[in-house]
Amino acid sequence: MPNSLSNAEIAGIIIECLPYIKRFVGKTVVVKYGGNAMINEELKQQVMEDMVLLNLIGIKVVLVHGGGPEITNLMDKLGKKPEFVDGLRVTDRETVDIVEMVLAGRVNKSLVKFLDVKGGKAIGLSGVDGKLIEAKIKDSRLGYVGEITKVNIQPVSDLLDRGYIPVISTIACDDEGNTFNINGDTAAAHIAGALKAERLLMMTDIEGVLRDKDDPSTIIKELSVDEAKALRESGVISGGMIPKVECCVNAISYGVKNVVIMDGRIPHSILIELLTNEGAGTMFRRD
Amino acid sequence: MPNSLSNAEIAGIIIECLPYIKRFVGKTVVVKYGGNAMINEELKQQVMEDMVLLNLIGIKVVLVHGGGPEITNLMDKLGKKPEFVDGLRVTDRETVDIVEMVLAGRVNKSLVKFLDVKGGKAIGLSGVDGKLIEAKIKDSRLGYVGEITKVNIQPVSDLLDRGYIPVISTIACDDEGNTFNINGDTAAAHIAGALKAERLLMMTDIEGVLRDKDDPSTIIKELSVDEAKALRESGVISGGMIPKVECCVNAISYGVKNVVIMDGRIPHSILIELLTNEGAGTMFRRD
Amino acid sequence: MPNSLSNAEIAGIIIECLPYIKRFVGKTVVVKYGGNAMINEELKQQVMEDMVLLNLIGIKVVLVHGGGPEITNLMDKLGKKPEFVDGLRVTDRETVDIVEMVLAGRVNKSLVKFLDVKGGKAIGLSGVDGKLIEAKIKDSRLGYVGEITKVNIQPVSDLLDRGYIPVISTIACDDEGNTFNINGDTAAAHIAGALKAERLLMMTDIEGVLRDKDDPSTIIKELSVDEAKALRESGVISGGMIPKVECCVNAISYGVKNVVIMDGRIPHSILIELLTNEGAGTMFRRD
Amino acid sequence: MPNSLSNAEIAGIIIECLPYIKRFVGKTVVVKYGGNAMINEELKQQVMEDMVLLNLIGIKVVLVHGGGPEITNLMDKLGKKPEFVDGLRVTDRETVDIVEMVLAGRVNKSLVKFLDVKGGKAIGLSGVDGKLIEAKIKDSRLGYVGEITKVNIQPVSDLLDRGYIPVISTIACDDEGNTFNINGDTAAAHIAGALKAERLLMMTDIEGVLRDKDDPSTIIKELSVDEAKALRESGVISGGMIPKVECCVNAISYGVKNVVIMDGRIPHSILIELLTNEGAGTMFRRD
Amino acid sequence: MPNSLSNAEIAGIIIECLPYIKRFVGKTVVVKYGGNAMINEELKQQVMEDMVLLNLIGIKVVLVHGGGPEITNLMDKLGKKPEFVDGLRVTDRETVDIVEMVLAGRVNKSLVKFLDVKGGKAIGLSGVDGKLIEAKIKDSRLGYVGEITKVNIQPVSDLLDRGYIPVISTIACDDEGNTFNINGDTAAAHIAGALKAERLLMMTDIEGVLRDKDDPSTIIKELSVDEAKALRESGVISGGMIPKVECCVNAISYGVKNVVIMDGRIPHSILIELLTNEGAGTMFRRD
Amino acid sequence: MPNSLSNAEIAGIIIECLPYIKRFVGKTVVVKYGGNAMINEELKQQVMEDMVLLNLIGIKVVLVHGGGPEITNLMDKLGKKPEFVDGLRVTDRETVDIVEMVLAGRVNKSLVKFLDVKGGKAIGLSGVDGKLIEAKIKDSRLGYVGEITKVNIQPVSDLLDRGYIPVISTIACDDEGNTFNINGDTAAAHIAGALKAERLLMMTDIEGVLRDKDDPSTIIKELSVDEAKALRESGVISGGMIPKVECCVNAISYGVKNVVIMDGRIPHSILIELLTNEGAGTMFRRD
Repeated sequence: MPNSLSNAEIAGIIIECLPYIKRFVGKTVVVKYGGNAMINEELKQQVMEDMVLLNLIGIKVVLVHGGGPEITNLMDKLGKKPEFVDGLRVTDRETVDIVEMVLAGRVNKSLVKFLDVKGGKAIGLSGVDGKLIEAKIKDSRLGYVGEITKVNIQPVSDLLDRGYIPVISTIACDDEGNTFNINGDTAAAHIAGALKAERLLMMTDIEGVLRDKDDPSTIIKELSVDEAKALRESGVISGGMIPKVECCVNAISYGVKNVVIMDGRIPHSILIELLTNEGAGTMFRRD
Repeated sequence: MPNSLSNAEIAGIIIECLPYIKRFVGKTVVVKYGGNAMINEELKQQVMEDMVLLNLIGIKVVLVHGGGPEITNLMDKLGKKPEFVDGLRVTDRETVDIVEMVLAGRVNKSLVKFLDVKGGKAIGLSGVDGKLIEAKIKDSRLGYVGEITKVNIQPVSDLLDRGYIPVISTIACDDEGNTFNINGDTAAAHIAGALKAERLLMMTDIEGVLRDKDDPSTIIKELSVDEAKALRESGVISGGMIPKVECCVNAISYGVKNVVIMDGRIPHSILIELLTNEGAGTMFRRD
Repeated sequence: MPNSLSNAEIAGIIIECLPYIKRFVGKTVVVKYGGNAMINEELKQQVMEDMVLLNLIGIKVVLVHGGGPEITNLMDKLGKKPEFVDGLRVTDRETVDIVEMVLAGRVNKSLVKFLDVKGGKAIGLSGVDGKLIEAKIKDSRLGYVGEITKVNIQPVSDLLDRGYIPVISTIACDDEGNTFNINGDTAAAHIAGALKAERLLMMTDIEGVLRDKDDPSTIIKELSVDEAKALRESGVISGGMIPKVECCVNAISYGVKNVVIMDGRIPHSILIELLTNEGAGTMFRRD
Repeated sequence: MPNSLSNAEIAGIIIECLPYIKRFVGKTVVVKYGGNAMINEELKQQVMEDMVLLNLIGIKVVLVHGGGPEITNLMDKLGKKPEFVDGLRVTDRETVDIVEMVLAGRVNKSLVKFLDVKGGKAIGLSGVDGKLIEAKIKDSRLGYVGEITKVNIQPVSDLLDRGYIPVISTIACDDEGNTFNINGDTAAAHIAGALKAERLLMMTDIEGVLRDKDDPSTIIKELSVDEAKALRESGVISGGMIPKVECCVNAISYGVKNVVIMDGRIPHSILIELLTNEGAGTMFRRD
Repeated sequence: MPNSLSNAEIAGIIIECLPYIKRFVGKTVVVKYGGNAMINEELKQQVMEDMVLLNLIGIKVVLVHGGGPEITNLMDKLGKKPEFVDGLRVTDRETVDIVEMVLAGRVNKSLVKFLDVKGGKAIGLSGVDGKLIEAKIKDSRLGYVGEITKVNIQPVSDLLDRGYIPVISTIACDDEGNTFNINGDTAAAHIAGALKAERLLMMTDIEGVLRDKDDPSTIIKELSVDEAKALRESGVISGGMIPKVECCVNAISYGVKNVVIMDGRIPHSILIELLTNEGAGTMFRRD
Repeated sequence: MPNSLSNAEIAGIIIECLPYIKRFVGKTVVVKYGGNAMINEELKQQVMEDMVLLNLIGIKVVLVHGGGPEITNLMDKLGKKPEFVDGLRVTDRETVDIVEMVLAGRVNKSLVKFLDVKGGKAIGLSGVDGKLIEAKIKDSRLGYVGEITKVNIQPVSDLLDRGYIPVISTIACDDEGNTFNINGDTAAAHIAGALKAERLLMMTDIEGVLRDKDDPSTIIKELSVDEAKALRESGVISGGMIPKVECCVNAISYGVKNVVIMDGRIPHSILIELLTNEGAGTMFRRD
């Protein structure tokens, strides 16, 4: 912090947030946590501070996370070699067990502790708890890769009602007691939709949607669902951006008000996105 | 605001408030509003912004006000001459009617509107509403100058429970339907005590309690009730400071956790006092 | 009271009220207070007793008041001369300030104290508190004369829920912090409509709607909205009665069940109207 | 009703009740119903009207009844001869079955219907329902004559909370499924005590406690528990009055605030007792 | 109980109920009690145990009863001869009084006590309490035989909400304070319908609906409303079975999910019906 | 299940549970899950069925688990060798990470899924969630082996209030974000104490406390705290039984009503213990 600031200047800065706070107090904001912000220690600390602050001032925040490199890490240590079918990675029983352990055990509890340390009141859930996320096999050749069939949001609502920050690891279950590996972005979209969230923040390692993907200055600040579709057809949205954008558009169709592809590499990007006049990425809205 | 600040710096500043917000969320803070902060238009705007922001993030704020120069103003216009008995000003029936009109009518509604405009949800009360403040005649020669006999805090609690900012004008009533002019600081102390407030902020036009009253750098940051008494005996607290300090000490005995004699001339002094590491004046605490 | 009555006769009289009480318990009754009943000291006492009794037995009562002669009174004292444009009185800034002081300060607190003294639990509000009544300028030449644009009834409902008698002074506000003078009958109609009141009582200094305006015995006990319109077209309703009746008809269209133009000169006219078989004036009903 | 009364006089009479209503609203009043008021059709109608009115205006009323002549009546019809042991009447199995049928079936439902017809919301209970009154055999020679061992007041409180008038027939039960005939006055005292009633009204066919039992003008308006004991020792209270007074004194020791031996032969005696300045009998109070 | 069972076998049996319990927990089950199960002492005890157990584990149970032979019994004792008009039995005033006494007094309280003794928390109601069942005269020649016009289910819901077992005797009332004798099955169907019950159990002395009425092995386990109508047209359902089946079909049209004509002669038939895989009779369902 | 049982016999068996169900409905039962019942697949299924059934009928059940052989299993696979100091096993950082993953990830989610499959509504927690269990280092030489310093039971109570089965893995946290391995029995005792549980069931692989440890027929059915202490002094309780018994005694001092050392090798031992007349082990009670 620039230490030349007077207290009055500090107060002035806080007051600038008033209209933004007013907008989100009592509403639900879901953060899909991932990318650099999950690896870089300092960014991680800042994400946790942001979550705790927002929760404290009365915004209902939910943290949805995948596992990043920790899964590969443990698989390597266990000498587990990835298998492929037609170029797609197979999740066999042993692998899904590792995924479950890493996500619901290691990563989830680690995030809960980070929030605890920052003064938050967090509780970890997985898609298995209270059958939060139900799934079925997507492609029998790929093993335990799940396609979401149902979201039972009650446990999350119950925790939000009691003032907790739910931290959700993105695995799913079915009626026979199987666990599935599921796509984190898709899960976040479903959860945010079921909560009729005011905003879903997709933390990524990019600036947002760019008109010229090599020029960050061409960032598009806001996109309607229709505009997003048009941009895809015209090829502006291409490659790895396609599923990301699709997920944002889906989230809106599930009931989320706005979805933001957010640059998680920026310090305190969540606060900036929610409490300043600038935002931090590309925001999707209904038409 | 220093416009050279980046969004990340802004977020960093907000995050610094986390421990202070944590301390006050869900608690009650009573502000005795007066002095320069009530006359200077810019300071007034800032007080209102501070109140709305605190209310929004879940702190229960109450604004207690007197009438400042507006009473004298209307009395002059009405050609009403102040009377005195042994050097003390007399509040006859006509005067107390003017006081009531100015405080509960003009000043109270003006403050409510200021809060409205800033986005707050404020409701004005006087000591007459719900028999909030009951009083009796203090000295029969002085007319309708009241000594507080009882505080019925329920209406204020009811409004706080429903999320409103109560704005209270300091007049009192009795069982026969009389109105009394009462001391604003004393009323604030009683109200804060009845609410078991976490903090009572007494806005003044001084820096706080000074060891050397001519040297602002000798400000005493914190005083226990016992220390305050000792300072008075030793003459450090003297003159007009005596009743002010007495009122603070009383407030603590009524159940308030901390009372602050605060310099209301500083912009956003309320936010600075509550949400930064510095405070803005002298804080009184239990021993 | 006729002192020859036995206790048994008294009890018999009370029992006669049973069906009327049954009808109104738990329902909302709005009283637009004005005219002689506001000036004559004895009538005023009786109105207050009636309000307290009704509140006590579980009827939700709201008192809406204007200012009567007190505004003119203070304007005279302040040497403020009324201005006119095309024969219409202008409310300049200074005047609306006086109106606010008198209504929200003097008159409102005086009524609250009357109710207090009778054992009621009353809280004063104005159209400014909680932005209860929002308005805009009606005719730019007339200054701060407001046309109601919105009623935010929540503060009134909140007070009724907690058992208070809301006492409302009929001024209004806008988003810029201006105060407006508004028509009391219109305000009462809007408030009663927003509360879906069972009954709105318009206290006046006339018997009600008369077929022959010089003969009180030609009073019309009940009128449907259509009948009222027909009577106006046929000229039976004329002169000063036209806006009064229009206001009653509007109130019904806003959601009030029945509206009564009531003779406030009769002692305890409110109790008579609500708890006896006779009523006290002309009642308007939906068709 | 004296038909010469004007509406204003009627209203004046109602207003006189204000302080009495204020005293009892939200409080519990238990009426032990019996004697002439239960036999005379007109008095019965009036008791029911009184109960409904009190319930309607927010007083929690409970009606406790015995069976009067109806039990003897049915026993006669069934050719059942009363048996005696040492001059005391025996309640054999067959008799207690008749008592149960008459009290809980005939009388209770008849009273519930009377209250229904008057517009009340009444539900009948007996000491058997929810094990409201538990008892044991008092004297083995007398059969099913019970001595109260426990009152489980929850069902009565539950009904009062939901706004019903509980109508209770005074029989009792035990853990083996037996029914007992119990003394109505004693049962009423226990029930009123368990409800911490504001007042218990014992309807009788006498004026109250008289200093000279042959001179109604010597009625004692109020008696402390100690005074009652003294009067008994001095012989002023004697004969059949002894158990009645004892019951009143016990009720106070169980937690009732005031108990009244009331003259049930007076029309609307309940309303007179509660809502006028006179009362209708002798009131017992704590010392 | 077969005393050779080990604890583990007992536990195994209990666990078998899991899916059935899951289905009914939190739902409402209405039992129309009658026939042999009401006369045979052992069966009666078992019905009461079943009710208490179901209530305890969180199923909302309601017991609806008629009077069986007890009415005739008392009429005989009182020398009351049944009258007939066109072969139909007449219920004169005296008779309906007897019915009320027996049902609401004797039988109702007896059942409440049985439930008490088994550890239940039961409260008896009749169609008169809270005007639960309103009726009008069906055929003026038959006297007080009622046709149900309205069911005010609130008192029953209130008792279920507070955890009681309501025990309801099937008489009805009207606005003039008359009592009516009504058909028990019809009353049960109306009550179950008003409660949107999950299941209505009609206890009878037959196996259920039989294809060949002389061969119990031809029992029909389940019938849709349409199938029931078809069976009636084809004559399979005939004689006394017709009104019984009609009543079941009506109950479904009133909002009950399933209705069962149940063999009440089987020990613990209620538990068997609800908690085992077999059921005990013929179940009716929507098409 | 003995397939020769008739439905009536089944119902009879269920009814036998009535008094036991009555005792535990609405109360809290904590099960410390471990030993054979956690390894043997059939026993595991039965434990889960028992938990779901108890939860369903309104008993608040909590499952507390350690990790059994799965921790060693994963450590082996990762080539992690146990270290020892003075014969005590050391939990270094890497080990506690493995413990956390296995307990909070693998085992916890596996149990939650088992309960899901049986129809339960389970949510997994660890000592880290909501800072449920706080600990400090016990012996610096042993690394992350924790000694419990505080239990924040609110998250568990919140889940029980909403009807969930909390499944708790026994790890702990501190203010710096460390995880600790803690003793499962001790954790269960603390959790049960904080919940003021009616009963804590310690599942073991022994019959209970035996007078002659080689003769199961010498099992002691019930022990007071004092008797337990005496038996320890006399040497009857010895060896591995000492810490187990100490833990039971501690649990009682923390507020648990009864603690049972239970033989988890018996099928459906939880149901047998709670719902039959026999119990399944040794029960400890206050003196």
